This record gives sequence, C-alpha cells and structure tokens, in this order.
Amino acid sequence: MRSAKINCERLLDDLSKLASFGALPAGGIDRPAFSAAHAQASEWLVARMTHAGLRARVDDAGNVIGRLGPDEWPALVCGSHIDTVPGGGAFDGSLGVIAALECARVLVETGADIGKALEVVAFCDEEGAYLSMLGSRAMTGGLSAEEAGTAKGRDGEPLAGAMQRVGLSMANLARAERRPRAFDSYLELHIEQGPVLEAKGLDVGIVGSIIGVDIAEYVLKGQSRHAGTTPMDERRDAGRAACEAITAVFAAQEQRGAPESRLTFGALEFVPGASNVVPGGARAVSEVRAARAQDMRQLRAAVDSAFDLAAARHALTLEKRHLGADKPSHMAPDMIDLIAGVCSELDFKFTVMPSGASHDASNFAELVPTGMIFVASRGGVSHHPEEFSEPRAVVNGAAVLLETIKRVIAARWKDGP
Amino acid sequence: MRSAKINCERLLDDLSKLASFGALPAGGIDRPAFSAAHAQASEWLVARMTHAGLRARVDDAGNVIGRLGPDEWPALVCGSHIDTVPGGGAFDGSLGVIAALECARVLVETGADIGKALEVVAFCDEEGAYLSMLGSRAMTGGLSAEEAGTAKGRDGEPLAGAMQRVGLSMANLARAERRPRAFDSYLELHIEQGPVLEAKGLDVGIVGSIIGVDIAEYVLKGQSRHAGTTPMDERRDAGRAACEAITAVFAAQEQRGAPESRLTFGALEFVPGASNVVPGGARAVSEVRAARAQDMRQLRAAVDSAFDLAAARHALTLEKRHLGADKPSHMAPDMIDLIAGVCSELDFKFTVMPSGASHDASNFAELVPTGMIFVASRGGVSHHPEEFSEPRAVVNGAAVLLETIKRVIAARWKDGP
Repeated sequence: MRSAKINCERLLDDLSKLASFGALPAGGIDRPAFSAAHAQASEWLVARMTHAGLRARVDDAGNVIGRLGPDEWPALVCGSHIDTVPGGGAFDGSLGVIAALECARVLVETGADIGKALEVVAFCDEEGAYLSMLGSRAMTGGLSAEEAGTAKGRDGEPLAGAMQRVGLSMANLARAERRPRAFDSYLELHIEQGPVLEAKGLDVGIVGSIIGVDIAEYVLKGQSRHAGTTPMDERRDAGRAACEAITAVFAAQEQRGAPESRLTFGALEFVPGASNVVPGGARAVSEVRAARAQDMRQLRAAVDSAFDLAAARHALTLEKRHLGADKPSHMAPDMIDLIAGVCSELDFKFTVMPSGASHDASNFAELVPTGMIFVASRGGVSHHPEEFSEPRAVVNGAAVLLETIKRVIAARWKDGP
Repeated sequence: MRSAKINCERLLDDLSKLASFGALPAGGIDRPAFSAAHAQASEWLVARMTHAGLRARVDDAGNVIGRLGPDEWPALVCGSHIDTVPGGGAFDGSLGVIAALECARVLVETGADIGKALEVVAFCDEEGAYLSMLGSRAMTGGLSAEEAGTAKGRDGEPLAGAMQRVGLSMANLARAERRPRAFDSYLELHIEQGPVLEAKGLDVGIVGSIIGVDIAEYVLKGQSRHAGTTPMDERRDAGRAACEAITAVFAAQEQRGAPESRLTFGALEFVPGASNVVPGGARAVSEVRAARAQDMRQLRAAVDSAFDLAAARHALTLEKRHLGADKPSHMAPDMIDLIAGVCSELDFKFTVMPSGASHDASNFAELVPTGMIFVASRGGVSHHPEEFSEPRAVVNGAAVLLETIKRVIAARWKDGP
C-alpha cells in the first residue's frame, strides 16, 4: 500500500475549478441552490467523483453523493456544501466537499481499506436560498413536508418551482431520507468564518459544539411626536427605549462574562425615522447564540427583561416575537479526541472551539458520532468575495481530514462490521 | 365706533373653507407651496381680503398680502402661512392667517383707527416643500439667491420650476424683499403643536422665545461580521456604539435637568441591518433644541463627546456632519407684557413658554418687536390629519390677537407716527 497523502495541486485545482461556477465578473460567487450555476457545479462534481472511482449520483433533494463500499453498509459520511450565499466566496462549504473528494481519491489510489462504506456528500441549499440546510435535513429525516411545501426563495419563488427548474420534484423529496442505520459517523472540514484561529496563530480548530441560535423581534410602540414641541417628560420615545434596552443587555452580558455566548442586535429601525420626529415606534432583532441551551435561555431572558424594563420606563407597549431557534449540537467527545490525536501527530497547533455558524454537521450530530475540523479564515471574513484561506491551511485541513478518516475506519474495523 | 369683537361663525367658516383646498378624501390636507391647491387657496384668500376691505396682492415670493393704510407707512404685520405638510391638518398656519384676516375685518367694520398700517400676510412655503420659510425670509431679506437657486422639492423639482408653474419667476424673487422700515412690529397666532397648554388647562401660551435647532449626523464605521463566528471581544459593533452614545447623552441630559432643552434622535440606521450580521455601520441624526444659544452649544457638545467616547470604546471611526442650525429667537419683552395684560383683562389663563417649532415670526424677531400667541392643540398632535383645536380655543386666540393689535396700534399712536 502506497502512503496516503493529499495531492496539494489537485486539491487546489479542484477548488479553483469549482469556484468558476457562478463566478461574478467583479469577484465573488453567486451559486445558490437550484440555480443553473449550482446545477452545473453538481454535474461537474458527479464527473469528478466518478473519475475518482466513486459511485456518484444526485439524490431527490439535490444532494451530490459519491460512495465507496457496498450499498447496504453504514457509511462514514464526509460532507459539506457547494451552494453559496449571493456574492459569496470560494471556500465556505466548497473546501469541505473538495477536501473530502481528495481524501476519497487518495484512499482509492493507495488501495486503502475504506471499511464499511465512505461517502463524499455535497448537501443542497445549506445557505438557505430556499430552506436552510434543506439537503442534510432531508437526508436525515429532519424536514417536514409542510415546511418544504411553504418554503420560498428571496424573490418569492416556491421551492417546488426551483426544484422543477433543475429536474427535481417536490413530490419525491421524501425519498432523499435515509434510515439512521445508513450512517456510521460524520466528518466535516470547514473554514472557521471567524477570526480566532488566525488571531491565535493556530493551524486547526476542533469544533466542540455548534452553538445554538435564538432569534427574537422586539417591537416597541409609543407615540410619534414633534421633536420641537414635545417636552422631554411628555415623550413616549420608542427609539430611546430600544437603545437603552440594547445598551443595558450588552453591559449585563459583559459583566457576566460568557465569552462563548454571542449577543447581536443586527437590525434596529425607528418609525417614522425622521430627524424631527420623536420616534413612536422601534423594532429590534436580537440574536442570542450559545453552546449550551441553558446559556441561550438565560441570555434570551436577559434581553426580554431589558426590553420589558425600557418599555415600562417610557410608557410603551412591547410585542415580543420569537423568530426561530436552533438548538446547540455537540460533537462526539471520542471524535474530538481522535482529531486532537491526529493534530498532535501531524504537529499542528489546535484548539477545541465552538462553531458560531450553523453547519450540516448539526443534522448528523444527534444520529451518529460527528466531528468538525476548522481551518483559519483570513481576517475572519466569510460570505464575501474576499473570503480566503491560505493554501497551506487548506492542505493542512485536508491532511487532518484524511488521517481522521483513516483512524475512524481503523477503529470501526476493530469493532467488527 | 362699534365694539370690536371677533365674529365666531365667520372665523370658523373661513377656516373650514380654507381647509377644503387640498383636502384628501381620507382626511388630512395636502397643500404644499406652489401646488395647485395652494395657488387656489391663495386666490381665495386674496378675494376674502379684498371683500374685507384690504388691498390684497400676491408678491414675487408667493406671499399673500392684505393691507390697510398708506403704502409708505410701516406696518404692523399679522402673519402665518397657508401651506401645509403632506397629509397635514387644518390649523397649523391657517389659524393665524384666518384669525388675522378676521381681526382686520372687525377693525374695518368697527371703523377703528389702524395706526400707520396693518397687514395680514400668508407667507409662502413655511413648511419647506422647497425651502423652509421661503416667503418670510424673502420678505425680510434673509434669503440668498444661491440658496433659492439650489432649492429642490422632495421629488427633486427645482424651486424655479415650481414657481413657474404658478406664474412666479425666480428672477423676480428678490423683489419680494422689503426695507426693514416697512415693518413696525409683528404678531402671529399659532397652534401650540405640543401638549403643554392642554395638559395644564391653559387658554393661551405667550411665546417667550422660539427655540433654536441644531441638527447633526453621526456616522460610525467598524466592521460588519458574522454574528455567530465573531466573539464579542473581536467586534467593532457600530450599532451597539450608537445605542450606547444615545443612551448616555439622554441620561446626562436628564441629570442636568434642562426642561426647556430638547434632544431627539429621530433617525438611526444600522448597516447592513441584517439580524445575523454584527453591524459595521451606524448612522444617527441628533436634533438639539434650546431657547438659549449657550444651552444648544452645551447639549451639542454632550452629544459629540458621547459619540467620541462610544467610537473609541469600540474601535470605530466617527464622522460628524453638521446638517443645519437655526439660532433661537426671542420675542420682545414689551410684546410679551402687552399680550399678558390682554390675557389678564380677558380673564384667560396663560403661561409664557418657548416655542419648540420654528415659525415665520423668527424672521421678524430680529427686525421689529415681535410677539406670538399659542392656543392649545388637542393631544399635542400636529402635522397630522387629526390636528385639532377647539372652537373656543380658536376664538379665544383670535380675541387675544385682536385686542393685542388694538393695543399695539394705540401704543404706536401715542408715540406719534
């Protein structure tokens, strides 16, 4: 058996070729799920998988699946996605798919035993052009027919129409679901999309948990009044109240010191929003993220009470609306240990860290032992044309993935088929 | 000489008739300067003035002027405006013009001596459809040709084009200016547009000063980042900083306790404004209003330093832009005393109070003794279809105006022509 080693040039070539599908003239990539660019990229990927010796197909959810090993055996799934946000970059998702393909190719070339089965998967619509993580949810049984039936794109196009455009059918979507026993374990290589690895000079991040997210809307209503004629103590200023609530909850969170929790107010609007009118309305959206469900609940309660307090202080009505939540998901401790061992052996500096972004891995974490490997994002930038990871980081990440795959397979063989 | 007394029915009829020009089917009035509705209202007003015995004309700035007394004598000017904001009400401006017309009519009917000269004026574009207080500024020499030449309406139409539509010419605008000696004194009756008189159960407000306004824009720039992957201590959150600055400056103002100063943040925008992105940009507009120039400067400096501090704390750049200012203007102490004497005699409860809104009176206050009379606005509502003042308040205000006119005339006669 030849030594199994990532082919750097081939890996970067494939990444570069994939980046050409949906490339924008001014830079960046538009390759949302079910677009022509996405369909072409999927077709190309099927060809690359086939060329590498995998049995490749597109399933009824638009997932591209390349498989090694008999159909009936549980698979170690190595996945990520090839769809992008509008004006996205060449690494988010793409890296994990292309690196997994390279790993499979190396294993085939070196005649390695792949255990029961190995799959390389590009999940469809991770970025939610129509439905966030549609592909991995459909495959793992986490998608209801109702949700799929009502999903719409940014321009209002129903998911059913988008699927039809690329030769898929909503009626067959449920066929993408596989029995839990089809999966043995899950691995995903991804860019960090944050600044931590670069700032700390680390080669690899091992994801401990994918932090949960809780989104809520706060609508304050007072009275819009003339900014000149309305004395300060006669005002019911919804804008001021929103600023006070936001300021208070940030200060409280800082004091509590929960470095792995994240609180964001990304959207705040004043109504009517004219400089000479005391704003009678304000709408703020909070995003609470934490690695533990308990921390999420606490932080959300803190936001709630800050808005309650500000509304009472300014004699406003307050409507709270829960816009959505994803529970935190936890990577398997054994998988974290295994990846840490690989990093040590390859002499890569690493840390165990939370993932602040959602990933397809979440949908496997409840079913099978799941692990995620991060490599550094330059400047922490993602979802942007300037998203970039150094070639060395890309190759190192793929090397960790390859060695991890080999160890998972070896551990499995020890246990017997 | 018959007793000079406001004719309640005639006053309310005229107000009601004026409200029909530009009336919207669903309520409210659209009568911006230079609109067809405004031109028709001006024409109607000329006819009403003429019918009352005044020599009426429209000047080169679109001001409607009705005069009693020889051309060469300085006039007591009783003015306000008949243009409205979009979807405005029937009292803002209109009340002052119609009440002044009624006063002149009563004086003519009762054969009263009107002193040197008396003018009733409806100033053009007080509300700034093209240029705020265009008419009173043009008449008092406070308008530059450059400012008029670059003024534009909300839809971008140049002022010159708007004037042309109603038969006026920008080239003749300067002709509206009159020598300062043309004016003897100035009186304006207006609705309060605020809640104070109603809340305190008062009949009349005597304006002490028209508070100044200083408008400034604060643009904070940090970095837009992924709300999930960016740890709290790596953020340069412009939205959070803006909220902190706004919260801090309100708190400081409250502590300082300056009840006649007003601080408003009517507009605040986050960039990009998506719930899952740490806002890299924020733009806030502050409006500082105070009766004394010194208080305005202090309050503006407090806003400046709150934003400086917040920008430094979050490693942001800050651009401050001064968007405009009007100095406070002060009513003549003699005029305030005179109106107070009238109120006492008529047994009206009154207070001396600042005007938080701007008025045409500002442009006369620096030239001649100027006084302003407020009557209550129901609920403090203005610039809105529901703007309303009770008939009793309207008639009482007109009665105070009439008696004040008579006393100003009498005082003048005492001094000799």
